Amino acid sequence: MKNIIKSTLLLVATSLFFIGCGNNGGKEQKKGGALENNVAEKVYVAPGEHDSHYAFISGGYSGNLTVYGLPSGRMFKEIPVFSQFPTSGYGYSEETKPMLNTSHGFIPWGDSHHPDISQTNGEIDGRFIFINENNTPRIAKIDLRTFETTEIIEVPNSAGNHSSSFVTENTEYVVAGTRFSVPVPQRDMPIKEYKGNFQGALSFISVEPEHGHMDIKFQILMPGFNYDLSHPGRGASHGWFFFSTYNTEEASTLLEVNASQNDKDFIAAVNWKKIEEYVNNGGGTMMPAEYAHNVYDEVTHTATSTMKKEVRVVNPSEVPGAVYLLPTPKSPHGCDVDPTGEYIIGNGKLSANLTVHSFTKMLDAIENKKFAGDAYGIPILNFEDVLAGSVEQPGLGPLHTEFDDKGNAYTTFFISSEVVKWKLGTWEVLDRKPTYYSVGHLTIPGGNSRKPQGKYMFAMNKITKDRYLPTGPELEHSAQLYDISGDKMELLLDFPTHGEPHYAAAMEADLIKKRSRKIYKLEENNHPYAAKSDADVKVVRKGNEVHIYMTTIRSHFSPDNIEGIKVGDKVYFHITNLEQDFDVPHGFAVIGQNTSELLIMPGQTKTSVWEPTKVGVWPFYCTDFCSALHQEMQGYIRVSPKDSPIKLSWSLDGE
Amino acid sequence: MKNIIKSTLLLVATSLFFIGCGNNGGKEQKKGGALENNVAEKVYVAPGEHDSHYAFISGGYSGNLTVYGLPSGRMFKEIPVFSQFPTSGYGYSEETKPMLNTSHGFIPWGDSHHPDISQTNGEIDGRFIFINENNTPRIAKIDLRTFETTEIIEVPNSAGNHSSSFVTENTEYVVAGTRFSVPVPQRDMPIKEYKGNFQGALSFISVEPEHGHMDIKFQILMPGFNYDLSHPGRGASHGWFFFSTYNTEEASTLLEVNASQNDKDFIAAVNWKKIEEYVNNGGGTMMPAEYAHNVYDEVTHTATSTMKKEVRVVNPSEVPGAVYLLPTPKSPHGCDVDPTGEYIIGNGKLSANLTVHSFTKMLDAIENKKFAGDAYGIPILNFEDVLAGSVEQPGLGPLHTEFDDKGNAYTTFFISSEVVKWKLGTWEVLDRKPTYYSVGHLTIPGGNSRKPQGKYMFAMNKITKDRYLPTGPELEHSAQLYDISGDKMELLLDFPTHGEPHYAAAMEADLIKKRSRKIYKLEENNHPYAAKSDADVKVVRKGNEVHIYMTTIRSHFSPDNIEGIKVGDKVYFHITNLEQDFDVPHGFAVIGQNTSELLIMPGQTKTSVWEPTKVGVWPFYCTDFCSALHQEMQGYIRVSPKDSPIKLSWSLDGE
Repeated sequence: MKNIIKSTLLLVATSLFFIGCGNNGGKEQKKGGALENNVAEKVYVAPGEHDSHYAFISGGYSGNLTVYGLPSGRMFKEIPVFSQFPTSGYGYSEETKPMLNTSHGFIPWGDSHHPDISQTNGEIDGRFIFINENNTPRIAKIDLRTFETTEIIEVPNSAGNHSSSFVTENTEYVVAGTRFSVPVPQRDMPIKEYKGNFQGALSFISVEPEHGHMDIKFQILMPGFNYDLSHPGRGASHGWFFFSTYNTEEASTLLEVNASQNDKDFIAAVNWKKIEEYVNNGGGTMMPAEYAHNVYDEVTHTATSTMKKEVRVVNPSEVPGAVYLLPTPKSPHGCDVDPTGEYIIGNGKLSANLTVHSFTKMLDAIENKKFAGDAYGIPILNFEDVLAGSVEQPGLGPLHTEFDDKGNAYTTFFISSEVVKWKLGTWEVLDRKPTYYSVGHLTIPGGNSRKPQGKYMFAMNKITKDRYLPTGPELEHSAQLYDISGDKMELLLDFPTHGEPHYAAAMEADLIKKRSRKIYKLEENNHPYAAKSDADVKVVRKGNEVHIYMTTIRSHFSPDNIEGIKVGDKVYFHITNLEQDFDVPHGFAVIGQNTSELLIMPGQTKTSVWEPTKVGVWPFYCTDFCSALHQEMQGYIRVSPKDSPIKLSWSLDGE
Repeated sequence: MKNIIKSTLLLVATSLFFIGCGNNGGKEQKKGGALENNVAEKVYVAPGEHDSHYAFISGGYSGNLTVYGLPSGRMFKEIPVFSQFPTSGYGYSEETKPMLNTSHGFIPWGDSHHPDISQTNGEIDGRFIFINENNTPRIAKIDLRTFETTEIIEVPNSAGNHSSSFVTENTEYVVAGTRFSVPVPQRDMPIKEYKGNFQGALSFISVEPEHGHMDIKFQILMPGFNYDLSHPGRGASHGWFFFSTYNTEEASTLLEVNASQNDKDFIAAVNWKKIEEYVNNGGGTMMPAEYAHNVYDEVTHTATSTMKKEVRVVNPSEVPGAVYLLPTPKSPHGCDVDPTGEYIIGNGKLSANLTVHSFTKMLDAIENKKFAGDAYGIPILNFEDVLAGSVEQPGLGPLHTEFDDKGNAYTTFFISSEVVKWKLGTWEVLDRKPTYYSVGHLTIPGGNSRKPQGKYMFAMNKITKDRYLPTGPELEHSAQLYDISGDKMELLLDFPTHGEPHYAAAMEADLIKKRSRKIYKLEENNHPYAAKSDADVKVVRKGNEVHIYMTTIRSHFSPDNIEGIKVGDKVYFHITNLEQDFDVPHGFAVIGQNTSELLIMPGQTKTSVWEPTKVGVWPFYCTDFCSALHQEMQGYIRVSPKDSPIKLSWSLDGE
């Protein structure tokens, strides 16, 4: 029997899989026609003009966050978050290495998934953007004044931090849920004893209103399901958070078969205000845990990592009325809440229909205690009691839904490879457009808020194949931009993404644009090794450590001749960029450096370590073409034998 | 006096610098006009259509090479070359770590500058692309069937490998010249004794015709100048190579002043065929040296690094008639040869005029021994004897010149921030267009060959400022695409680049497109740890090393439950992707991994090491969304205490 199920499922999955993958599609616009002119113009941003929207697209397995403009589809920046970034020295420089510290030690890579922009009163405010790391669970915060990662907090008791990082209506919390359940606390036990023993942690990380500092307020220890995605309530449902679950079978092997058995899994509805109140009154248990909290200080230009030792956990049974389970067909992936907060969409990826739950009906069922049973003590509501409606057979393999400002919803279908537009309330399908190929998430600017900005929608596709000129076996993923301002969606543009785009957050440009910083002020630079003028330039030996306080300005380093370094020394180049004009970075590299270059913004100080192993006279130079005399921006450092009597000396132009 | 020179120079440089940096420019096309429609259409590549050209743009301080389409300006891939690349595990996986080995040890970063596509009979053939690493001198080769870096050779006796990597007419050699001169061999000596003691190595790296294997054939040890850029002769001048020099003053400090004293520096003309013949007859000296040669084997999917121990060096004085110096005003940067091979352009960055040398006149001067003296024994020709002509006052700060197929040249001017089109032979300026801002290199597809494909030209600009939506203090650099098919250049598009674009190589797409590989054939996979079917799946312990032979296929790992691992073990996950369809990669990550994920293409095997430090049951999963049941593609690995008696076991679905 099991084998029959396996074969059937695999057959269905495989055959459906290929529906979306034909190479016959997508050539909708013919070259040179009037239609194309019109479409071309819709995405063309002429030299000197600006895009109207920012899109922040997760880099997936790149570990980073990429910044695009819409409608042009041009990538303006890759912000390093969870991965080393040789381009700027992030994760290599002494100042940024602490950002990648974890309870497992230094981790040079991450899998970033779901960016979400901070909100005030349910509207995105453009202050911060949060993003989750899946593999070694962490949440990062990026400051949208500088577009730099300024804080990363590890999430203990979690594994596969996937139903993350979504914010509540006033950014009270950024929420992170485990995808994989694990023993909590971790212990040596047989994998096959998973069922009933593993647990899933849902973490509520508080965000301090002024500076955005993060702290884990509490974790809810849930049954050993997989928690796939989540979204906050808003409006009437503010105070609640919704999580999709799959593998309610609690299988620990061959999940493609064994976690696809139940006709319905759940959306877990969490009344976080109730639990917050419980916790504020001393509820919950402080549990030993180990997790890193890494903070980048903009004044010292330096990150520090602190290892935290305990976390507050709450069992749902401790807080009656705080958690309910809403039956949802079948292995729901996305869990999306409409702008009013009334509708909770369960995108059952193996379901024929798209299920919409009603928040009002849920409250009513709870009030009337209409329970269908419980799972590990958590009340299960009746499917019919909470169902707002279904979109009947809208497509194959629904994954995610976003919303416009006119009461419409847009759902992606991975297997049938399309975006389907439908009406909230009537559940009527209004339009469908193919995607190329096999779409995952989609994004509408402002989509995850009370005020979507519904002009554009873009689909992030998992398969690329022939969409662009070939680049060998490995391809970038593809996104597609649609105009959704009319009754029908209009495909405008294919644009490649960088890494694996999971989710994206997007918004109109103005709010971010006007807050964007151009330089770091030199007078505010409190880096302990800063040289803020040529008077501060020096070279100091402490045992076998040599600290070089160096400055850069167009087009020289000071000092640019250094002698007295010896093999076995650990040489710290602390480099301050004295420039105070916008877009005048300098770079620094020295031959044989076993780390990366530094890219130093105006007013910044950064440090690179060099441990020379060979006697000689070695050059260093500026890596960022900075002026007409950039090629002249170089220097030499002399390395003598270990026992050399040569004293430290340094100079610029012999002085 | 020196201070006056300093002040004057800095003033001139600074004031000129800002000419190109105003924020008033570039809004040439107005929204909605008929002109814009036309321009928009010229760069719009409709969904389902392909770009007509590939552009391979160096990543500069990213260490990588990026692949763009023209005319759309979309980035299709970032090929990791000299830097660790968390996205695919390049430089982290066991198979690829040897690619970044050097005589200085493992180096995770590089500064890539000048890509050049292989040529046959002076025409680009689309087989390989070469690119140099500046900081720790290396040359890499990328196979354009797979778009993967397959070979890297270190260049000894070099420092700042900048006048690289350009190929001769039949890819006999890829040529690399040092930017910085250094003691050869390296030794402990005072920096101020630079003059007369430091030397500059110009390296000729042979390229084996069939497979492209690289080997350093010889190095020419030149005077202690800076060697900035180079290009091969072609046609009549095939057999020669030309290098621009600056710092003929041999200054070792404050070069922005001290290397800007001489009115003329040199272009060094090297008759490499003569030296090759000398070397083939046993000439030159084998000198002790240490440099890494790293080769990626496509059959084992594995790189190996070999440390080479000697290199053949040649002093110009050994081969009379092989090297000459052509006086060239002033601090020439680019050294460009026109498609016929007759004209050698010296882009004197501090010169008022643009100097063009004649190859014919050079030969004539040599034959008639019309020498103006010598530098360290190398004959200096008379400026007037070799001058073909000058473009008079074409702009400020010329850097680089490329050519179209109609006898025109296009030169970039950094300070006046423009591209100037002029006529070869008449030296008449035909057109000029502003760039935004401060252009460095420019590229015309096929530009560095006998057959330029002169439809497009793009400028790679060093300053971005307001060209795009702001992204804080750090900005991507900007490129600008021009249509050069008409008499006048037409600005079409601004597009951001990734990293720092120095040079780019570009060509029509067809030749590469038809050779591009889609998968790696599983039957050709000879990786020693490959599991090519489920029958090969196993887990083997060797002391504290555990080797897991694992397979992936939609949508499971085999095995997906592993027990018997202990704290202190070094666990090697050897993962083979059994898929044989195009664009079905799988990824692999395990929690707490102190390295990156793996991204495994169909038919490939890759290895990641995991050294668990904590007891528990830990999940792993596929990082690349591969099917409708991708979220189910996961497994668990149990880690027991160091002294645990639990035996190794592994299974999929309990079997």
